[in-house]
Amino acid sequence: MEKLYVIKIGGNVVDNSALLTNFLTAFSTIEGQAILVHGGGKLATSLARTLGVSQTMVEGRRITDGETLKIVTMVYAGYINKNIIAQLQAMHVNAIGLSGVDGNLIKAHKRIDANIDFGFVGDIDEVNTGFIHQQLLNNTRLVIAPITHDGAGQLLNTNADTIAQTIATAMSDTYKVHLVYGFEKEGVLRDVTNEGSVISSINNLTYSQLKKENVIFEGMIPKIDNAFLALHGGVQSVIIGKAEKLFELMNGTAGTTITN
Amino acid sequence: MEKLYVIKIGGNVVDNSALLTNFLTAFSTIEGQAILVHGGGKLATSLARTLGVSQTMVEGRRITDGETLKIVTMVYAGYINKNIIAQLQAMHVNAIGLSGVDGNLIKAHKRIDANIDFGFVGDIDEVNTGFIHQQLLNNTRLVIAPITHDGAGQLLNTNADTIAQTIATAMSDTYKVHLVYGFEKEGVLRDVTNEGSVISSINNLTYSQLKKENVIFEGMIPKIDNAFLALHGGVQSVIIGKAEKLFELMNGTAGTTITN
Repeated sequence: MEKLYVIKIGGNVVDNSALLTNFLTAFSTIEGQAILVHGGGKLATSLARTLGVSQTMVEGRRITDGETLKIVTMVYAGYINKNIIAQLQAMHVNAIGLSGVDGNLIKAHKRIDANIDFGFVGDIDEVNTGFIHQQLLNNTRLVIAPITHDGAGQLLNTNADTIAQTIATAMSDTYKVHLVYGFEKEGVLRDVTNEGSVISSINNLTYSQLKKENVIFEGMIPKIDNAFLALHGGVQSVIIGKAEKLFELMNGTAGTTITN
Repeated sequence: MEKLYVIKIGGNVVDNSALLTNFLTAFSTIEGQAILVHGGGKLATSLARTLGVSQTMVEGRRITDGETLKIVTMVYAGYINKNIIAQLQAMHVNAIGLSGVDGNLIKAHKRIDANIDFGFVGDIDEVNTGFIHQQLLNNTRLVIAPITHDGAGQLLNTNADTIAQTIATAMSDTYKVHLVYGFEKEGVLRDVTNEGSVISSINNLTYSQLKKENVIFEGMIPKIDNAFLALHGGVQSVIIGKAEKLFELMNGTAGTTITN
C-alpha cells in the first residue's frame, strides 16, 4: 500500500505568516501523497470582534451562531485556505483547497447536546474516500478547511483535529496512513512550562496513568483521544509535536508518538 | 465532441437567496457537463463598509487594495462559493467549489495600467484545461469564484465575465461549449427601461451599429466583447439574458444570442 501523510496544523501556524511559509516549504518537499488539514486561528475571532459578533467558547469549541458560521466560512474556507494554496502553487506543488462540502467530502450533522446548544457545529458522519482517492490519483494535494455540511444545504463548523483523524482513519483501508498533529508545543509535555519535557511515546496504559496524574488535561485530551481513534481505525502512526519540525515529526526524532 | 455549458451568474442572483435557489435548481437538472462561474454581489461591498475599508470603482472594476482583496477572497471564495456548493449537494449534484488558485486553474498577472492603479486586479494568462477536464471526467460540476493567482503566491481579483469567457474558450478544443451570461435583465435591451425590448440576436455588424446609436453602452460593452472573444475562440454559442430563465436561455427562446 502507498504511504499517505495526513497533517494537521493549528491556529498558531496559520496566524503567523513566517511560520506558515516555513511549514509549507517543508510540506512541499514531502515525497508522495499528503493531505493538509488546517485549523482556524485568531483571524476569525478578531473579525468577529470587529463585526461586533460576540464569541463564546465551551470546552474549546466555538459556539457557532449564524453570523459566526458566516465568519468562519469566510475566514477558513476563503482567506486561509486560498492563501495556503497560492503559496503551494508558488512552490510548484499542485494543490486544491476544499471544505467538507466540496465533492461531498465530509458529511456531518449538527451536534446534539442536551446541555449546550453549540449552534452550527458539526459532528462527522462520513468521509467521501472515493473522491479523495480520485484527487490523489491526479497527484493533487488536498488542503482542507474545517467546514463540513449536513447534506441538506447547511454548512457546519467542525473541529480540525477530528477532521484530520476521521480522514486518516477512512483512508487507511487503501493507504498506509501516518497522522501528524502539528501544534505550538514540542509534543505532549510532562511539565507544560518546560518544552524540554516531551514525553516521547504514549500508549493506552501510560495515557490512563498520565490522565490520573493530571499531566495530560484539558485540550490535550481530545487530541490524544483522536490519536487513539485513528490507531484503532487502522492508521499506522500518530505523532504530535511542533509544526515547524515537520520532518523530525515524520521521521520520529521529535514530538510524541502515540502507540496502542 | 461532448457538450459543455459554461454559465455565469452575477451579483443579482448571488445576493438574492430565493433567486439563487431557483437558479441552482435549474442548474442541477442540466444534463451533461456544466461549469458555473459566479460573481461577487453586494456582500463584499457591505462587509467592506462595516469594516471601514473604503471602496472605489473605476470602469465597473473594483480597485483592489490589500484589505479589499482579503474581503473579496473571504466573500467570493469562502461564503458565496461554499453556500452554492452546499445547496448543490443538497440537490444531489456533486460539485466542487474552486478559485483560480486551486489546481492552478487560472493564472493571471496584476493589471498593468499606465493611468490607474487597480491594485490586486488580475488579467488572465492561462487556464489549466487539463485539470478542468480531469474533474469533468469524474462527473463533478465546477463552481468557480472570481479569484485568480499569479503563480508567485499572490491572489488576484478577476472579473467573472472574463473568467467565464476564458474558460469557455479554452475548453472549446475538447468540448462543444455553450456560454451563458445570466444577469438581471431579459437580454440586451433596445430600450434599457423596457424589458420587452430584447434584441434577440446581435452579430458583428449590428453590434457596431448599436454602439454607434448608443443603444449598447457602458457595462454591456465588455460583456459583449467577451462574447465575441468566445465565439472567435471556438465557443459554439453565447447567450445573454435573465439568469432565472436558464432553460429558455439554453434553448434559445429567451435572451440575446450573439453570433459572428
